[in-house]
Amino acid sequence: MKATYIFGAGDVRVLDAPDPKIIQPTDAIVRVTRACVCGSDLHPYHSLPSTPSGRTMGHELIGVVDEIGADVATVKPGDFVISPFAFSDGTCQFCRESLQTSCEHGAFWNAPAQGTGGAQAEAARIPLADGTLVKVPGTVDESMYAGLLTLSDVYGTGWHAAVRAGVTTGDTVAVIGDGAVGLMAVLSAKQLGAERIILMGRHQARTALGREFGATDVVAERGEEGIARVLELTGGHGARRVLEAVGHLPAYEQAVGIVRPGGIISRVGVPQYEQGELGWSFFGKNTTLTGGPAPVRAYIEQLLPAVLDGTAQPGKVFDREINLTEIPEGYAAMNGRTALKVMVRP
Amino acid sequence: MKATYIFGAGDVRVLDAPDPKIIQPTDAIVRVTRACVCGSDLHPYHSLPSTPSGRTMGHELIGVVDEIGADVATVKPGDFVISPFAFSDGTCQFCRESLQTSCEHGAFWNAPAQGTGGAQAEAARIPLADGTLVKVPGTVDESMYAGLLTLSDVYGTGWHAAVRAGVTTGDTVAVIGDGAVGLMAVLSAKQLGAERIILMGRHQARTALGREFGATDVVAERGEEGIARVLELTGGHGARRVLEAVGHLPAYEQAVGIVRPGGIISRVGVPQYEQGELGWSFFGKNTTLTGGPAPVRAYIEQLLPAVLDGTAQPGKVFDREINLTEIPEGYAAMNGRTALKVMVRP
Repeated sequence: MKATYIFGAGDVRVLDAPDPKIIQPTDAIVRVTRACVCGSDLHPYHSLPSTPSGRTMGHELIGVVDEIGADVATVKPGDFVISPFAFSDGTCQFCRESLQTSCEHGAFWNAPAQGTGGAQAEAARIPLADGTLVKVPGTVDESMYAGLLTLSDVYGTGWHAAVRAGVTTGDTVAVIGDGAVGLMAVLSAKQLGAERIILMGRHQARTALGREFGATDVVAERGEEGIARVLELTGGHGARRVLEAVGHLPAYEQAVGIVRPGGIISRVGVPQYEQGELGWSFFGKNTTLTGGPAPVRAYIEQLLPAVLDGTAQPGKVFDREINLTEIPEGYAAMNGRTALKVMVRP
Repeated sequence: MKATYIFGAGDVRVLDAPDPKIIQPTDAIVRVTRACVCGSDLHPYHSLPSTPSGRTMGHELIGVVDEIGADVATVKPGDFVISPFAFSDGTCQFCRESLQTSCEHGAFWNAPAQGTGGAQAEAARIPLADGTLVKVPGTVDESMYAGLLTLSDVYGTGWHAAVRAGVTTGDTVAVIGDGAVGLMAVLSAKQLGAERIILMGRHQARTALGREFGATDVVAERGEEGIARVLELTGGHGARRVLEAVGHLPAYEQAVGIVRPGGIISRVGVPQYEQGELGWSFFGKNTTLTGGPAPVRAYIEQLLPAVLDGTAQPGKVFDREINLTEIPEGYAAMNGRTALKVMVRP
C-alpha cells in the first residue's frame, strides 16, 4: 500500500509500505476512506531533524473495517468507523473517567513502540479496536465524510477546549487561533451556549468561517495590542473563558493577558514550549489553566447526531481535498496557510 | 503607637509610628488584639533590597473596633472583628463572585498607595470596613484568639487550596509544605471529606501536627525521590488533588510530578518564580492548575462556627507568642524554623 512518511523538516513523501496486518487479537485493519493533515503535523514539518529511516504520519481517519482480530467484538468487517487520534482500551480507570488519552494501555498514533503506521495511508492497523473505534450507524455517503472526519480530532479537540473551560449559557469566551481547532472551539462554545465569542485571528477567510460558526467579534491584533483590544471589548476585565488553540508561547501569553480574574484558560494546542508565565500576573488573579490532548473518543457519540443530521457543519473546515500522492502539496498548502485543512483521499 | 517596619533583608524593627486616623468615611480604626507573622513575610525578610524609608509589615489581625468613618454600617466601636489579608468593598462584581482578592476597589495590606500601616502594630486603619471586617458574635476570650486569628489568612488560604482543587469525599490529596498554610490545607481537605491525605514535609513537629489534622501519610523525601514515593503510595498514578502551599519552584515541580492524569494542582503559596513547567509533562496528562491569593473574606462566616465551638482547632499552628517589641526574634524564629507560626501581642 501507499503510506506517508516524514524524513525531516519539509520532507514528506508517499512511499510503498507493507500492508498492515493483525498483530494482536484486539486489532482491526481499516481501509482508509478519508484521512487529513493536522495543524500538529506541521510541528515536525517545521522542525524535525533529518530522520533517514522516516516516521509515519497521520492520526485522523474514517474508513471501513477490513479485518478484525479474534477478540474484537464491537466492530466487524464492512462497518464504517471513525478512529480518534489516540488508541484506548475503553476499560481502564482513565477510560472510564473519559480521559482516554491517558489510557493505561493506549498510545498515540505513530509512536514507534506502537508498531502501527500512520493514518495518511491506504489502510491502517488500529490497536485496541473495541475501545478505539466508533461505528457510524446507517448508510454513509460521500457528502458526510468531511463532518465525520472532524470527529477523529479537530471537532473533539475544540469541544474539549470548551468543555474543560466550563463554557456555559451566557458566557463570554475568547478563542485564540483561527486554525481548524480554533474554529471548532468557536462552534463548540456556541453549542454550549456562549453569548459572546471573540475570535483572535488575522486570516480573513478563516475568521469569516468563524463568524459563521458563532464568533461575535474578531480581533486581528496580536501581542499587547491584541490584549488591549480584548480587554476593551470586555469592560476592561477580560474573558471568563479563554480557549487557546495554537500551542505557541505567544498564544499562551495572550491567554494570560486576556483572562478575567477568576477565569479559565483551556489549552488544546500542543505546547511547543516547556516553560511559561506562572508568576503573579497569572497567580494574582486566581487564573485556572486546564486542557491537554483531547480525549476525543469520549465525545464522538455525543457529537455524532448533530453531524449526521446536519445541525452542526464542522466539515466546513476542509477547504481542499487531495489524493494521497499529493500529500507533499497538502502539507505545503497548510504550512503556507493557503489551505485551512486538507482532506486526503487514498 | 508602635508598629513594625522592614528596611531590607533580615532587618525588621518596631518603631514609633503615627496613630492611624480615619481618612475615608468607609474606614475603621481597629486596636489590634493579636497579629502574627506570615510565611509570606519571610519573602521580603530573605530578599528585600535595602529600603531606607522602611515598609510596614503584617496583614493578619484580630482586634476591637475603636472608631468608624461616617459611612460604616456593619461594625461599631467595641465590636471584636477579624480582618482578612485583603481589603474589599463587598459590592463589586468580583466580591459578589467571592473573589475579594480581585475587588475593583480593594487592595492588599502594606501597598504604599493604600496609605495604611501594617497589622503588626498596636492599631490599624482598615479601609472599606463594611466589606472587609467580620464581627465575631458573642463574647470572645483569650483562649479563642489563636483560632480566630487563623481566619485572617492561613486557615482561609488552606481552605481555598482545597476548595479550588475540588476536594471531595473519598479523595486522595497530596499537600506540599508543612508550614502553617500546608497544615491548614490538610485540615481543610479532611473537613471536605478526603480519605487519604499525603503530607509532604520533613519537619517532624509539623508533620506530627499534620497527622493530628488528618494527614494519613507523611513523605519527607523531596525532588525525584519525593515524587517516586508519592507515586508508590498512589498505585503509580499520583494524587488527584495536589495542594501546593510553599511558593518555590521545586514545590511546583513536585506538584507536576505527583499529580494524577486529569488531576488538579491548586497553588496558594505566592510563587517566588515567574516561569514554570507547562510543556508535555504538564499538558500531556490534562493537568489543571488553579489557585491564587485566597479570598479569605469569602470563607470566614463559613469556617467561624467550627472554630467557635472547638470542632476545628486551627489555632494549634501557633507555637509561639511574643510581645510586639520582640518582633525581630519572631521573624528569626520563623525563618530558622524553630517556630511554626508566631502570634504577636501588641
